[in-house]
Formats: sequence, structure tokens, C-alpha cells
Amino acid sequence: MAAMTDHPAYPRFVEIWGELADLEAAEQLLEWDQDTTMPAGGVEGRARVSGTLARVRHERLSSPELAALAEELAKEAPAGSIEAIQAAEAFRSIRQAERVPVALRAALAQTRSRAHAAWEDARKRSDFSLFEPQLAHLVALKREEATALADGGEPYDALLDLYERGATSAGLAPLFTELRRELGRIVHAVADSGAELDTSVLQGDFPVDAQRRLGLEIAEALGFDFACGRLDTSAHPFCITIHSGDVRLTCRWQEDDFLPALFGILHEVGHGLYEQGLPEAWRRTPLGAAVSLGIHESQSRLWENHVGRSRAFLRWLLPHLRQTFPVFVGTRVDRLWPLLHRVQPSLIRTEADETTYNLHVLIRFEIERALFSGDLRVAELPGAWDDLYAEVLGIRPGNAAEGVLQDVHWAMGSFGYFPTYTLGTLAAAQLFAAAERSLPGLEDDLAHGHFAPLLGWLREHVHQHASRYTPAELIERATGKPLSAADFLTYIKQVTHEVYGLRL
Amino acid sequence: MAAMTDHPAYPRFVEIWGELADLEAAEQLLEWDQDTTMPAGGVEGRARVSGTLARVRHERLSSPELAALAEELAKEAPAGSIEAIQAAEAFRSIRQAERVPVALRAALAQTRSRAHAAWEDARKRSDFSLFEPQLAHLVALKREEATALADGGEPYDALLDLYERGATSAGLAPLFTELRRELGRIVHAVADSGAELDTSVLQGDFPVDAQRRLGLEIAEALGFDFACGRLDTSAHPFCITIHSGDVRLTCRWQEDDFLPALFGILHEVGHGLYEQGLPEAWRRTPLGAAVSLGIHESQSRLWENHVGRSRAFLRWLLPHLRQTFPVFVGTRVDRLWPLLHRVQPSLIRTEADETTYNLHVLIRFEIERALFSGDLRVAELPGAWDDLYAEVLGIRPGNAAEGVLQDVHWAMGSFGYFPTYTLGTLAAAQLFAAAERSLPGLEDDLAHGHFAPLLGWLREHVHQHASRYTPAELIERATGKPLSAADFLTYIKQVTHEVYGLRL
Repeated sequence: MAAMTDHPAYPRFVEIWGELADLEAAEQLLEWDQDTTMPAGGVEGRARVSGTLARVRHERLSSPELAALAEELAKEAPAGSIEAIQAAEAFRSIRQAERVPVALRAALAQTRSRAHAAWEDARKRSDFSLFEPQLAHLVALKREEATALADGGEPYDALLDLYERGATSAGLAPLFTELRRELGRIVHAVADSGAELDTSVLQGDFPVDAQRRLGLEIAEALGFDFACGRLDTSAHPFCITIHSGDVRLTCRWQEDDFLPALFGILHEVGHGLYEQGLPEAWRRTPLGAAVSLGIHESQSRLWENHVGRSRAFLRWLLPHLRQTFPVFVGTRVDRLWPLLHRVQPSLIRTEADETTYNLHVLIRFEIERALFSGDLRVAELPGAWDDLYAEVLGIRPGNAAEGVLQDVHWAMGSFGYFPTYTLGTLAAAQLFAAAERSLPGLEDDLAHGHFAPLLGWLREHVHQHASRYTPAELIERATGKPLSAADFLTYIKQVTHEVYGLRL
Repeated sequence: MAAMTDHPAYPRFVEIWGELADLEAAEQLLEWDQDTTMPAGGVEGRARVSGTLARVRHERLSSPELAALAEELAKEAPAGSIEAIQAAEAFRSIRQAERVPVALRAALAQTRSRAHAAWEDARKRSDFSLFEPQLAHLVALKREEATALADGGEPYDALLDLYERGATSAGLAPLFTELRRELGRIVHAVADSGAELDTSVLQGDFPVDAQRRLGLEIAEALGFDFACGRLDTSAHPFCITIHSGDVRLTCRWQEDDFLPALFGILHEVGHGLYEQGLPEAWRRTPLGAAVSLGIHESQSRLWENHVGRSRAFLRWLLPHLRQTFPVFVGTRVDRLWPLLHRVQPSLIRTEADETTYNLHVLIRFEIERALFSGDLRVAELPGAWDDLYAEVLGIRPGNAAEGVLQDVHWAMGSFGYFPTYTLGTLAAAQLFAAAERSLPGLEDDLAHGHFAPLLGWLREHVHQHASRYTPAELIERATGKPLSAADFLTYIKQVTHEVYGLRL
């Protein structure tokens, strides 16, 4: 079979797609810079620049030339060939871009920016009413967008699909039902046991510079390539790829607690390793990027939870920790390890433990479904939120700032995004269990700081495929079974058993 | 007269121009980031992104729609109105963009990038032959570009005009002839006097953090707005505007000498104050940017030399300097001041004193003219360079690294750029003399750290006009006479007289 790359349409197709990737790279840098570096006075100018770049990219994506090239390739490339998949992926993006009318796109951009400002103010004053009108407007526009994207299907599913190709509300519901039941049982059992973990050993003074040095050392040991990446400071940690050879992580630091930065870095390094492992040959093509947010989150959660919270990893980490913070000289792995697996219902998602975290996500999923089905009005949001927290987690927010206003996602119009956190958590457990099966020496490797075998397994089974398979296909190929909550629940039950002595 | 902004063509004209400005802003950020922040591995990816953005901007600039709008405005706007000048400026840019064929543009970009790499290598090994083939290729392409841009005129003048609107070789020659004669006399007289200044007082250990703190304090005192700007570190100091509200300065630091960073910051702050003083109303229009490199350099040189090297400024600075570096506690203004006005021929342009600096520029101007007239071949460059240094400055480079390979400009294809340094130096002296005439309390103001009156004068006479007038018009309006070397030579003769006791 002749290589499709010899097809006369292919070079131009790849050239245009490369330009789209380059424009996106510039947008990524504008965003990174705004979050880490830009002086406050640049906000308005930056919004204009970002808006223009997004518009230019959208114009190119919807150009008749690109659609014609993709069509030609789709018709003539052998089914299943890389070129056919690239053409299909291109069509998916083109269709998504075309279904949303220009006027709606502009209204969304403007409303998002207003809603974001209103949300910041509302959260500061803990007053939902300051956010409500903008949010209601944004939800209405998002419903319009979702309906356009769904093309006759479920509007909310079209939003899910933006972040997690192929995800549907109907597919997620059973997963969340199972998690609610099983995790609920665990949370209740721990609460009923009355057990309290002694966390005094975690107290101390942890200078930011020392935390940063330790973080860099860990990131490098895990395999993050700093010749092609950075670690900076921002208000909210994130990982962003500017372009090939430039992947950036950020972190925030607390002087009185080193755990948030430590696990924040493990988390972002997980994202960063995925980005650095994407195949160079497909970069700047429709298959070159990470396949979905859920798969991305599976990489961050895997390193954060299944590696970072393991006894084996702690064994490797402790000498480094002691060298950085002498307060840990007398501390042993068995004293620290249980504290990384506390089960403690709390109000703030980003501070939640690995067990209750998914219940926070579940609450947001329920609310989003109700908002988009019309069962819930924006005005009813705070009440619904507080009731769900009381019902699911047994605690009720004292105010809107620690309740419905805590997350930025809705203010940015990112509905359908939250579920990817849980999909990623489940996938992380399933991938790690599969890696354990094929790497018998894994625990020993982790204890000795040999992270390359695990990274190699992830490169082979996840990273190198970029967007070639759907998330569901990717997980099934890598683990031998469809995504389920089984491995995650096994893991959680095991650690809860060991930490709290509960048989669940 | 009805405002032309009501003209039906105007809003769309300004919209397109705004998009061009936004694309340029993204290019600026890509460049700033590459020079200060980007990991080494990003070089290739970054080149592609920058190339794509430049191409997209070029396409928009050459779009028939923009040309038609500019033509309509140019025809219908009253002569001398802002809209007419905007249309004329737009035409100038469109014409420049159109005259260079796409293939030549691509060849230039590619050759520039190769020549830059070859130059880095050649400079490291001090071997011109490693650079020569790429430079010869680049000069040939630049001659082609210059011929295309000149449209029948002098090719080298077309290059000058890219950086300094209206500058010509014939106009510059008499200025340089006068400078060569007069500065040559001074250099010889100082050398003949055998005077040696005792610089031991400048020796010490100057921690980078302390230098940075002092630099920030000075920049803020001069009027640089850090809510809309930054100061970072880079290998070569520069000032760059990303967009409205985001102007960035960079500096480099030497632990054993604080003067380079001090005067580097004064210089870059001068550029930054100009950028921050451009009128908001014209931003993202064809008149919104600084008018030329020469005028830009007049602002940096004015603050660096006429303010920064003045006794009055030293009087204000010394208490801050003493607080930062206690080694200066016993040092007085009269001990420091002469050391800022040394006359000492040297080989490296960027380290030259304020008197000999212009002779370095003159040498480059002579060489560029000869290269583009065909009187000099690239292979003859090193010999011509060394001979001119011996002839003009009385010293001969010992190797190519401290000779013909010292500057990056030619490796980037920036021929015609050097003369703007001298034009800026002359304009700085002329502007400062004019400011002194209209601000009788200026010296006293500077000695007390009141920089606002001088900044106000520059805002009024230079900054607020952005690109409305040509550089020549701007100088004549601000100072009452055409640009000449007179005020600069008066200034240099005065300080040389005071420092060396020479009457010239």
C-alpha cells in the first residue's frame, strides 16, 4: 500500500493544520504569560490579542480549502490508515467550529469575560446574587451552543464531548451511582468509627525556596525533561504546552504546609510527562494532541495518587524530604503514609482527599445535568448545591464562597468539564493496576526511584497514541477491559482498610 | 468639519489594523519569552510559531480589502486630518509588504535563521570564515530586498527607511563626517594629554539582588509604571511592548561592576517611558507606534546620558546608592561624576563611552554603504573592519570575535539599523537642550528626584505624537530646528573640558 503521505492533498492539509497548531501555540503562551507574568495593567490589551488570535484560527479552521482537503483524504485514504483518522479528526473539529454561529461565538466570548469578572467579585463578597444574572445569561448561551453542537442529540452530551470524546450523560450516570453508593459507605464507616489521625508530624515551617528545590528534584527524577520545560508559580497550578519542546508546569506554595505543593507537582508532572511523550511525528496534525481531558487527568492522578501516595514512593522520597526539611529526620514511612489517605468530608473540591473528591465531582455533574435539562434554574443553584453537599457529604457550606462560588469553571462557561476529573481518576486506577500486572518489579522500582519502567509503560500504552484512539478505545487497549470504577474502588477500599482498619 | 471617524470605511479600517496590531503583539510576546524564559528545547517549535504568525500578518496586511479601505480614506479624508495620515501610513506599510515577493521573504527568513546560527558558532571560535558564506548569501538577498523596496531609488536608503523613516545615506554622510572630525579631535586630545582617571572607587562586590532592587527603585522614581510593566533578566538588555498596558524591560547584571546595569536600566527605562506615553486613542492604528528607532533611541539616550550622567542626578542617586552599597558611604559626587565621562577608545561598541560610541557606529555605516554599493565584498569585511578601527579609533582588534563578529545585527539581516543609534544620540542632546530652555528649574528638579517635569515635557513634545510626524518633523517641532550634531558636540566638549581640563 502506497503511503498516503504521497497523496497530493496531504502536504497542504498538514501545512494548514500546522498553522492552526501554531496559532494555538501563541494562544497558549498568551494564557501562560497572563497567569504567571503579565502586569495587571495588561488585562484589556491581552483580551483583545487573545480574541483576535482565536478568531483568526477559527476562520482558518472553517476555510473551504481545509474542508475540501480533508474530504479528499477521507475518501481516498484506506480505512484505518493514519491519514484517514487524521481526516476524520479534522472533520470533527471543522464541524464543531462550523456549528456554532459567529454571532453566538462572539456573545459567548463577551459573556464569559463578564461572567468571570462578576464571579471574582461575587466570590470575594460571598454573594451569589452578584454572579447570578451573568451566569444565567451564560447558561442560556451555552444551552444554545450545546443545542447547535448536538445537532439533534442531547445538548449536555455535546458539551461533555468537547472535553471527553464520546462521553455521554447516560454512560456516566451508572459510574457516578456506583461511586456515590460505595464511597458513601466508606465515608460513613470512617465517620462512624470515630477514628482521628494524628497529623501533628506534618506541622512545621517550609520555606518556599526549599519546597521549590525539592519539587524540581522530584519532577526531574520522575522523568520530566527540563530542557524542554519549566516550573513556575501561579495562583492555580496548571500544565500547559506551548509547542514542541516547551511544556510548562506551575505550582503554588504554602509556607505552613508542604503537602499541597508536593502533590500539586506530582499531579502537574503527570500531565507534563504525557505532553512530553506525545509523538513528534504527529505534532501539528489533527492526531498530535492529548486525546481528552479524562485521559490527561488519568496521567496526573496516576502519578499523584498511585505513585505519590504509595509506601514505595515514600520510601524513596523520605531521604530527600529529610534533607530538605530536617524536621522529618526522625519520621518514618509508617508514620507518614496513613496521613496521605485520610477520609474527611470537606467543602472545597480542590482540597478534598482522594476518596471524597469524586463526590464533589458527582454533585457538580448532577447540577449540570439538571441545569441543561431545564430541571434547575440558575436562581435555584445555591440551594441545590448546599442540599446536595448535606445529602452526599454530610456537611453544609456556611456561605456561597465555600459553596457554589468556589470553582471558576462555570464562570468560564466550562460546563461538562467536571466529570473528566472522575473519569481520569477511574482510568488512573485501572491503568496503574494494568501496569502493576505487567511490571512485576514496579513496587521495588518506585522504592528505589526507578521511575523509567512505569513511564515507559505509559509511553507505550497511552502517550504514543496521542489522539489516534478514542478515550474508551485507548483504555480498553491498555488495560484489556472497558473503563469501570472497579480498580479505583478496590484501591480505595484497600487503603481505607489499612489506614482505618475497616473491612468494607 | 465632520469627524472622519464617521466615515463608513473607518471602523472596518481600524478593525483590520487592530487585528494586525494584535498579531504583532503575539509575535512580541513570543520573542520576549524566547529571550527570557523559554526552555532551550523550544527553539524549533518557536521558530515555526513565529514564522506562521508573521505570515498570517503579512497576508492580512496585503489583503485587497485593507488597501481599498485605505485608498477610500486617503481620497476622502481632509488633507492633514488624523485619518488621512493614518491612511497614508497604512499605505506605506502595505507598499513595503507588497514590494518584497513572497519567495524572497521566505528565503530571507530561512537565511537569517541559518546566518544567525553560523554567526554564533563563528563568534565562539572567533573565525569569520565560518560565517562568511551565510553572510554573503544574506547580503545578496538583502540587496535584492533593498532594490525591491527602493522602487528605483538607492537600495541602501530603502533599508535605512525601514528603521528611520526618511533617513538617507546622503543625509547621514555630513553628520558622520562632522562627528568623525570633531570626536576624532577630542579622542586625540585626551590621548595626547596622557590623563588617566582613577577608577578604583568603582571597585567592589555588587550582589545582583541589590542591583535589581536599586534598579526597580530608580525606574519607578523616573516614572516607569510597573502596574503596566516589568523588569526581567536577559542576555542582552532590551525594551519590548507586548500591547497596551504591558511594556517590558530587561537587564543583565555583573557582580563586579554595577555601572552596566545602572546605565542599562536608565537606557531601557527611557525606551519604556516612551512606550508607556504613546496615546491610548491611537493604539492599534497605523499611527499608534513609536515613529522610528532613532527617536526611540533619543529617549533612551536622554535618560541614560543627559539625566543619568549629570551631576544633578548623581546628587539624587548617591543616598540610594550608599544605602544599597555601603562601600559608597564616603564617596562624593565630584569623585564619581568624572568617571561617567571617560574618553577611552575601545573595541566593543556596547561597552564604549558616550564620546567614542558614535565612531563605532560610523565604522559600521561606512561598511554597510560599501557593501550595498558593491565597493566592498563580504570576504573583504574583516580587513576593512580592522583597518577602519585602526584609522578611526587608533586601535586594531586582536581577533574576529572582538572585531567584525561582535554584533548580532548583520547576522539578523538588520542592515541600515546602526545609524539610528547615532541619530538617537544627536536627537537626545538636542531634545534635552530644548527641555532645559523651557524648564528653568530642571537641574534642581533632577537633583531632588523630581523627574515628572522632564517626563511631562517629553510626553508633550515626543511621546503623545506617536507616528503622526516624521522623525525630522518631530525634532524640528520639539526643538525649533532641524536635527544636527551641534547640541551633542557642545555637550561632549563641555564635559570633556570639565573632566580633562581640555579646551576644544
